[in-house]
Amino acid sequence: MVGYPTPKRIAVADTKKADTTHYGKRGMSLEDDINATNAYYLDLQRAVIHKKPTPIQIVSVDYASRSTARITEAYFRKPSTTDYNGVYRGKAIDFEAKECSSKTSFPFASIHPHQIQHLESVIKHGAIAFIIIRFSKMNETYYVDASKLICNYYGEKRSLPYSWFQEEGILIPMGLCPRIDYLKIIDQFYLGGQK
Amino acid sequence: MVGYPTPKRIAVADTKKADTTHYGKRGMSLEDDINATNAYYLDLQRAVIHKKPTPIQIVSVDYASRSTARITEAYFRKPSTTDYNGVYRGKAIDFEAKECSSKTSFPFASIHPHQIQHLESVIKHGAIAFIIIRFSKMNETYYVDASKLICNYYGEKRSLPYSWFQEEGILIPMGLCPRIDYLKIIDQFYLGGQK
Repeated sequence: MVGYPTPKRIAVADTKKADTTHYGKRGMSLEDDINATNAYYLDLQRAVIHKKPTPIQIVSVDYASRSTARITEAYFRKPSTTDYNGVYRGKAIDFEAKECSSKTSFPFASIHPHQIQHLESVIKHGAIAFIIIRFSKMNETYYVDASKLICNYYGEKRSLPYSWFQEEGILIPMGLCPRIDYLKIIDQFYLGGQK
Repeated sequence: MVGYPTPKRIAVADTKKADTTHYGKRGMSLEDDINATNAYYLDLQRAVIHKKPTPIQIVSVDYASRSTARITEAYFRKPSTTDYNGVYRGKAIDFEAKECSSKTSFPFASIHPHQIQHLESVIKHGAIAFIIIRFSKMNETYYVDASKLICNYYGEKRSLPYSWFQEEGILIPMGLCPRIDYLKIIDQFYLGGQK
């Protein structure tokens, strides 16, 4: 695995992440990279793209004082939409990000059926929909058009080989700032030319 | 207050709502109405618009078993974006919904400055941005163009009078299905003609 420039710094943008970050792992997580990239886009007013908060089922809340409500029992819920959405150059943007630890294939089981349905819906309504998949072992991050992935999702295969992503995906170069410039891919391949 | 057709049925689309619904109140909350309307739009494939999950800061999680993670301490966070977004007729949609209990005015304090900044940003990038405000006492729900509200937000006033909404807002007729057909307003006033 190719080392990142600052492998030991853990950027925690999402609080759920704070609890689940694997500190033994080298480099940033894909989520950290995307959050940093989105913050960069927002700072420069290039786009407004946010990660949605993690859906949580709240069971019990303790109202100790008027201002502070303490949640004392809650559970993670399965997501019904994708993790990221926003707006760029007048277009609705919608995508899911996945890290894949396998060297050989990406299993469809790692995407919820609801998320696939959601991607199909937003495509119908004119959003630019895609999936960012990182093969952690190779340290390669691919932009994959959601419709291409969906075509295969409804086939007989239960996973897509790594070679498929090399052929059908677009490798996103890793940078420092922004770390994964996925809007550049959208400019080049979907919105006709550089911005 | 004009009664709703089914005042005692509480539709719970959001689990957070389940804990905070005021059962003594007659009628549905604005959030319930919007969630039901969005579900209707999604069913009919008219638009894909979702409420974002409530942002929560997780402090402590109990991993009792492999499959169930129980959150034992968490707090509500202030939202940095609006509550609702999605895609309609190729356009990014972004809005905030507010219920106002005053008969005379809507206080700006009920919208976070971050939400105003977020609305400004999405407008710049081409989203259709608005605010749905319900004056509960009058049982009137208005569609307000976000840019109109923002203009006033940066003025000297700390609130906007009810009359302002009557003049500058667009009254959304209350229906049964969908309950508040705000896309009709967008069709008529922003996307040129009925769909």
